[in-house]
Amino acid sequence: MTISASTATVRFAGVVPPVATPLNQDGTVDHASLARLVEYLIGAGCSGLFALGSTGETAYFTDAQRVEIARTIVETTAGRVPIIGGAIELTSVRVIEIARQLVEVGIDAIVATAPLYTLNSPTEIATHFRAIAAAIDAPLWAYDVPVRVHSKLGVDLLMQLASEGVLHGVKDSSGDDVGFRRLLAANAAAGHPLQLLTGHEMVVDAMLLAGADGVVPGFANVEAEGYVRLYEAAAKGDWDTARTEQERINQLFEVVFQPSGLSGDATGVGAFKAAMAARGLIDNATVATGVESLDEAAVTSIRAILDSHGLLSAR
Amino acid sequence: MTISASTATVRFAGVVPPVATPLNQDGTVDHASLARLVEYLIGAGCSGLFALGSTGETAYFTDAQRVEIARTIVETTAGRVPIIGGAIELTSVRVIEIARQLVEVGIDAIVATAPLYTLNSPTEIATHFRAIAAAIDAPLWAYDVPVRVHSKLGVDLLMQLASEGVLHGVKDSSGDDVGFRRLLAANAAAGHPLQLLTGHEMVVDAMLLAGADGVVPGFANVEAEGYVRLYEAAAKGDWDTARTEQERINQLFEVVFQPSGLSGDATGVGAFKAAMAARGLIDNATVATGVESLDEAAVTSIRAILDSHGLLSAR
Amino acid sequence: MTISASTATVRFAGVVPPVATPLNQDGTVDHASLARLVEYLIGAGCSGLFALGSTGETAYFTDAQRVEIARTIVETTAGRVPIIGGAIELTSVRVIEIARQLVEVGIDAIVATAPLYTLNSPTEIATHFRAIAAAIDAPLWAYDVPVRVHSKLGVDLLMQLASEGVLHGVKDSSGDDVGFRRLLAANAAAGHPLQLLTGHEMVVDAMLLAGADGVVPGFANVEAEGYVRLYEAAAKGDWDTARTEQERINQLFEVVFQPSGLSGDATGVGAFKAAMAARGLIDNATVATGVESLDEAAVTSIRAILDSHGLLSAR
Amino acid sequence: MTISASTATVRFAGVVPPVATPLNQDGTVDHASLARLVEYLIGAGCSGLFALGSTGETAYFTDAQRVEIARTIVETTAGRVPIIGGAIELTSVRVIEIARQLVEVGIDAIVATAPLYTLNSPTEIATHFRAIAAAIDAPLWAYDVPVRVHSKLGVDLLMQLASEGVLHGVKDSSGDDVGFRRLLAANAAAGHPLQLLTGHEMVVDAMLLAGADGVVPGFANVEAEGYVRLYEAAAKGDWDTARTEQERINQLFEVVFQPSGLSGDATGVGAFKAAMAARGLIDNATVATGVESLDEAAVTSIRAILDSHGLLSAR
Repeated sequence: MTISASTATVRFAGVVPPVATPLNQDGTVDHASLARLVEYLIGAGCSGLFALGSTGETAYFTDAQRVEIARTIVETTAGRVPIIGGAIELTSVRVIEIARQLVEVGIDAIVATAPLYTLNSPTEIATHFRAIAAAIDAPLWAYDVPVRVHSKLGVDLLMQLASEGVLHGVKDSSGDDVGFRRLLAANAAAGHPLQLLTGHEMVVDAMLLAGADGVVPGFANVEAEGYVRLYEAAAKGDWDTARTEQERINQLFEVVFQPSGLSGDATGVGAFKAAMAARGLIDNATVATGVESLDEAAVTSIRAILDSHGLLSAR
Repeated sequence: MTISASTATVRFAGVVPPVATPLNQDGTVDHASLARLVEYLIGAGCSGLFALGSTGETAYFTDAQRVEIARTIVETTAGRVPIIGGAIELTSVRVIEIARQLVEVGIDAIVATAPLYTLNSPTEIATHFRAIAAAIDAPLWAYDVPVRVHSKLGVDLLMQLASEGVLHGVKDSSGDDVGFRRLLAANAAAGHPLQLLTGHEMVVDAMLLAGADGVVPGFANVEAEGYVRLYEAAAKGDWDTARTEQERINQLFEVVFQPSGLSGDATGVGAFKAAMAARGLIDNATVATGVESLDEAAVTSIRAILDSHGLLSAR
Repeated sequence: MTISASTATVRFAGVVPPVATPLNQDGTVDHASLARLVEYLIGAGCSGLFALGSTGETAYFTDAQRVEIARTIVETTAGRVPIIGGAIELTSVRVIEIARQLVEVGIDAIVATAPLYTLNSPTEIATHFRAIAAAIDAPLWAYDVPVRVHSKLGVDLLMQLASEGVLHGVKDSSGDDVGFRRLLAANAAAGHPLQLLTGHEMVVDAMLLAGADGVVPGFANVEAEGYVRLYEAAAKGDWDTARTEQERINQLFEVVFQPSGLSGDATGVGAFKAAMAARGLIDNATVATGVESLDEAAVTSIRAILDSHGLLSAR
Repeated sequence: MTISASTATVRFAGVVPPVATPLNQDGTVDHASLARLVEYLIGAGCSGLFALGSTGETAYFTDAQRVEIARTIVETTAGRVPIIGGAIELTSVRVIEIARQLVEVGIDAIVATAPLYTLNSPTEIATHFRAIAAAIDAPLWAYDVPVRVHSKLGVDLLMQLASEGVLHGVKDSSGDDVGFRRLLAANAAAGHPLQLLTGHEMVVDAMLLAGADGVVPGFANVEAEGYVRLYEAAAKGDWDTARTEQERINQLFEVVFQPSGLSGDATGVGAFKAAMAARGLIDNATVATGVESLDEAAVTSIRAILDSHGLLSAR
């Protein structure tokens, strides 16, 4: 693999939200709302975008739909911030197929998980990432989300792949803060080859104190400004302000705990979209086809939380 | 969904092996060996074939490769036995895409798992199967393999989908023999709408005694005749012969426990392919790209086990 | 360790139910009902008893209570059948303490799990069993119940301990029928040093066909005669009768699926005790202190199931 | 339950190390080293002690040994700091038995987990804690350590028990930093009824920033002064110093990653004790009976890490 100068310099730090995928009521992609959402996120000060992640419901789309979603995000962004795109697939040959299509439409970097469905060893998982990196013309990131992938990427594996130039960064949604702290230390000791972003939007202050380069907060789709303020405070070493902002965000984040009896996907993305629609950031709260909708009670609770923070749309 | 008379009568019972996918040393599909393997399985008396399952390493192939594999199996089979094809994908829209391609080349029925990567409720999993069944022109089966899918299909869910005509059968690789027994009882009480096959090749006699309609034994790729004899003995109520055959097979099955330190996929399919190559049933023991190969010691042990049962190729 | 001639000849095979622990409404042990239950089980033809297992709610009792429970079972049994007692504790030093007390009051053999709460390797688990066996004057059995212990006893570990004379048998409640089949084969190959009992009461016919020496059915507390008939049919090779009996039992066993929304312990033992009380085998359906009781609807459903099989008490 | 004025005022915050249990080479408790260790911890500025936790290997001791260990800690402490004692047992009736003995010898508060081995609902787990609190004359804390207990204590459950006066605090070793953050917020909103300590010694700075009241660092047995400095810096809002100290500690903490191929208990406590012995804080590195010892290579690596930080004993 040859990393070209241009790809090697794409960097993702600060606030890099995973862009939700607004849908029309019939389940098709609402590209107008998507473009509006991208404008909102960039306008709020986000320093990069993560297209086609879990918050973007990427697993529920065909490759053709994924490419169209990526295209809208790329065209709306128009180079103002870099975009990393999720290539969520079973194994490397399949990751490569979709990754190339995403790069083709202008995605700047690719993030992939360990293989899905298969039963692989760490050695095989390393081979998987090497194969992807060698086959695509963009920097590769690893996405560590064991609750979905059902395997955990270890510190040694990640640092080995960093030393080879295979990986450029990690999006950590592992929920393993001790492991992430060890990764931060190992990365620092190795000269910081990886950019390390946390996906845990409720503990960003703590993760930044620990040394994270940035955050991928799904909740920024609902309110991005807070994360930008939080990050800027942390960057200045003003930890009290960072914490205060985090605590305010966390009160808002309670929207996610309003639905009851639904699946993880229905609850998480469903609450985000309900809040986004209530704020007027997107037209409909429709979730991916096959995922259950929130009931009226949950939506009412979500609106009340937003209202108590002055975040309800005047529309 | 309208089930046409023709599709509704496709039945899978008896011995329905998941066809392994022989590879050339460069990792490309060895269609000649695949055709030879299909001939072997049909010649041994198998009553159906399962294309593109876990034993077939389907997760490691692109859709284009999957279609070519299916085509070879269909053309070689030439209608002698029915073929069910695995459509292993993240969610229903993606399952439907590949399932339609498989039906197009002549696959007679489709088997799909619950969604992968996503976090869904039983209600959403039911919706997933309904969407697939409604969109394809072939009977749908459910594949229950929690070790890979990380969710378990419950008895109530399966029987509900059976009552709706959504599901025609289940391939059970759940390792939950109590749950499978309850499913057998519920299915019998409902008039046997589902055909129920076990994937656990080491306990086929017991599962047939319990009422299973048949078996999907990966190990039949190594030696299919034993399973046919076992099934025929059980069908006659000759349980002592069935058990004796099962115990002989289980001694042979120890080939799977010879590799050490490798992943589940490397060990399982790797041992099968090493044994198949040693018997001359396929040309190379090559496993899917990215999966580690067995070492020489494991291969030697596998050959010794085959030899002790007179199953080593004279070639 | 010296195994005396007497202890070495204690054998458990056939139907060896785990004796439930009847309670008074105030949560104290109802020794009169316990004695009546023991009489029922022996009278029905059970060939041994398992005191202080999970069905016996042993975890919910103090050591003093455990000893009193064991004493009542021993005294009522009066040597008619052998009794194996559960010594369910965190680690070997604690297992030994209670095991010695149980042997003191006349329990014939001890069954222990791998350590609880601790994080041990297979090597350490083997040391654990060796320490227990060396310290007690009774044969030791292993109890494999991963759903409670959260570790699985492997075939190699068990056979190694059998070869050393440390273990005399295994009560398998692992739910891993493939692993149990491998254990049966390894045990047969080694000259049958272990007696292997299954705890899975819904698949006894299949496990006996596979070679199990017997069964530890919690459900025998509700109706023991069926298991005795099942075992006797299997012993004669009359597998059709065995299966028919199993299927009848399994219809009855649906009592366990009547409660909803309760814990595993509340559901399982609660349903057994409700059915036992409904049949008049014990006075009260009271479950251990701290465990939730069944609601009236569940009890009514349980009674209806019993009634449909002519098993409701005339009282 | 009546909480007396005296018990209600026992508070644990700051650095409250779980005291390791030094052993003689024959496995008996080395009370002289234990007293020396307690002196070391108090002298280093710890504000409380946690006796008989996981680091104290409490699961491996009989009740009689536990009481003797507690007595030595109590007598050596002589009231200088409060002591909380672990009552790690299967269910409430058994927790109460040992807890009362610990309170009898002078332990100031009790910490208990959810039930072990049993299969309980959150409702039953709440009942468990209520029963313990009502039966002991000391404040009760909850110990949340799912890797050992195999169930997680939820925020709602803990806050409900706090509102009832049942729980006075939580020792969180759940590894779920998002859940802990939610607990911190809920506790703050409720008027801080619970004292919340983290057990994750590698992320103390971040947890203190998030609002934790203190830390229970097993690694303080190796070096306590760093945690005291870290806590004091955090208490003053000097987060850069806190982080720098944490990062220094984390370099030292790599001692835990030197052993390979051993169990969790052998690795964790084994590494602590090897480092403690190397520093001269205790006489022997002997771990609990039945747990494997570190090999020479691991001990050498541990000594090298200590040496590089100037922490090796001159002895």
